[in-house]
Amino acid sequence: MKEESIAAVREWLRQQELDACLITQPHNRSYLSGWLEDEAEAAWLLVAQEQCLLITTTLYREVAEKEAVGCQVLVPERHDYAEAVAAQARQHGWKRLGFEAEALSYSAYARLCRNTEGYCALQPLEATIVGRLRQVKSAQELERLRKAVAITDETFAHLRTWLRPGLTEREVQWEIIRTMIALGADGPAFAPIVAAGPHGSMPHARASERPIEAGELITIDMGARYQGYCADMTRTVCLGEPREERMRTLYEAVLEAMRTCEQGLRAGLSGRQADSLARDVLARYGLAEYYIHSTGHGVGLEIHEGPMLSQRAPEDALLPAGAVVTVEPGVYLPGWSGLRIEDSVLVLEDGAEVLTRSPLDLIIPQ
Amino acid sequence: MKEESIAAVREWLRQQELDACLITQPHNRSYLSGWLEDEAEAAWLLVAQEQCLLITTTLYREVAEKEAVGCQVLVPERHDYAEAVAAQARQHGWKRLGFEAEALSYSAYARLCRNTEGYCALQPLEATIVGRLRQVKSAQELERLRKAVAITDETFAHLRTWLRPGLTEREVQWEIIRTMIALGADGPAFAPIVAAGPHGSMPHARASERPIEAGELITIDMGARYQGYCADMTRTVCLGEPREERMRTLYEAVLEAMRTCEQGLRAGLSGRQADSLARDVLARYGLAEYYIHSTGHGVGLEIHEGPMLSQRAPEDALLPAGAVVTVEPGVYLPGWSGLRIEDSVLVLEDGAEVLTRSPLDLIIPQ
Repeated sequence: MKEESIAAVREWLRQQELDACLITQPHNRSYLSGWLEDEAEAAWLLVAQEQCLLITTTLYREVAEKEAVGCQVLVPERHDYAEAVAAQARQHGWKRLGFEAEALSYSAYARLCRNTEGYCALQPLEATIVGRLRQVKSAQELERLRKAVAITDETFAHLRTWLRPGLTEREVQWEIIRTMIALGADGPAFAPIVAAGPHGSMPHARASERPIEAGELITIDMGARYQGYCADMTRTVCLGEPREERMRTLYEAVLEAMRTCEQGLRAGLSGRQADSLARDVLARYGLAEYYIHSTGHGVGLEIHEGPMLSQRAPEDALLPAGAVVTVEPGVYLPGWSGLRIEDSVLVLEDGAEVLTRSPLDLIIPQ
Repeated sequence: MKEESIAAVREWLRQQELDACLITQPHNRSYLSGWLEDEAEAAWLLVAQEQCLLITTTLYREVAEKEAVGCQVLVPERHDYAEAVAAQARQHGWKRLGFEAEALSYSAYARLCRNTEGYCALQPLEATIVGRLRQVKSAQELERLRKAVAITDETFAHLRTWLRPGLTEREVQWEIIRTMIALGADGPAFAPIVAAGPHGSMPHARASERPIEAGELITIDMGARYQGYCADMTRTVCLGEPREERMRTLYEAVLEAMRTCEQGLRAGLSGRQADSLARDVLARYGLAEYYIHSTGHGVGLEIHEGPMLSQRAPEDALLPAGAVVTVEPGVYLPGWSGLRIEDSVLVLEDGAEVLTRSPLDLIIPQ
């Protein structure tokens, strides 16, 4: 368990007048307990002023006891986590128990309700302090993130020499995964996106059996995961000369949007302001309607976490120094093609450090 | 969309006196829509007598329209899925809307409540017909499952010639992933487990940097995913002669438990009876207390799905013909080691077909 973070959660519990808080979001649980396990059902973490309990099953008992140092591991009968939580509430006289509203199913909530009825009130929490703690990376977390980014860069360097017309999107996807693993990654942080030609207009296209062709846009969105931490990068490339002149002009516009955002980024900006840095550039080029997603998101234990660089971010959500975020403008023309460019960036007090080092040339000469 | 399955859902809705049902479990959504996408937040599926709607975001619109043939794709503003569902309920005069209680967060439930208050009642469903439909595999699903199993077998055949003392658990894990992908898998169905020596006592151990040694037990639990469908297999091997005689005797006991279960398996058994087939054998050897998990589970679009071969299965849950399940007895001695053997098996009216073909020798000669 992370002593400092648990101390911060306890202070926050006092402020919220909660006796305890149930952490069911798997990455929040990993972050606080030190036991990296993505499976949601593997355990519930229960934090109170005196307790830090991991409620799990026989399957995970030994690994949890070993890795979640400082947590007490409980294995309730019949996998009944809700009853185990209720028993703790009874035993310690808890009156108010918070839970993560986004990370507890209605079903688990209903079971908790039945078990605690009459003596302990359940308090749904739309956000807890854990999400905010996770936004600011520690030295160890940054080290792992930098390594994940470096593996991603090295994988792309290999792709630049290896890519050729005729390879299918799936073959490129496999090569990415293979290379990341050979370079020491846990694996890919997400299924790599390889979207060529017409597939480029779908930001989340699945890699297909379609062969890539010279002269078309190829969007490659990938990231390695290293000791639990995720990198995220997109490059759009073209094998040889682009078929259409507008491929170049769109690429230049998107690149300008990314650079403008990276240059303007610093701690204290709101997520909306950060999004606008990129969005305004594309709007100036008349491309606003083709920019159909947000500019970025935090990365860490999850490939998508806070803070958001988005018009949908709360108005008062400001970027903290120490956050690692993506900057990823793109344009998507349905039925034609599309492109996106994305770096991972460390937010600093007075600026930002671009972690991704992969080259930004559109053309790979053939 | 799967016409027959959607028809079955509509018939079930009539029986349940529901006007519509919201499908948020990603594999249920994939199964019914035909659009294979694991990301939970990617879409909600709403099925009514006249409607089959995929509610998604701009990110997924084009791919959803292409792959979810027959579904109408809706993209609500501000990603507000709950409001989109409520608008449909208002428009069509729905009074009772079912939702998957295990697959909707408390938070989404609360938003749905606010949006539908006063004109449409929400009905939590602990189970829907979709889970039962998914248990019985179609010819196309079986074909994909057989291919996933074949890739897994071929990967193991490679491992048997490649494994040697000194390789770390992580290196073995990487080799498994690399090989599966080279053989045409989507990827591994889950992070392969490679647990050697003392790690073998943890059923869900993470692969570590510890080198494997001659003469110790090495549990390898792996499965390929092919066109969305998951295989699951475990083999325990020993490089050269086992260090301790009890390794052989425990192995024989676990193997007998697996074979006895496979030979007794047939449609119409309850999940509890199927579990007992294996458990009774281990009990006879005095190993009951070391068999700390259930005997098996269904596999398909998910690596763990229904039916359960477990004492925790509902008493009236019977295995249907056409289900593909795992049979995976094991024994785990904390601090010492452990072992597990697992096949994927097709349940038939009057027996079962073992799909997994990998050899069951404990020893790989050195």
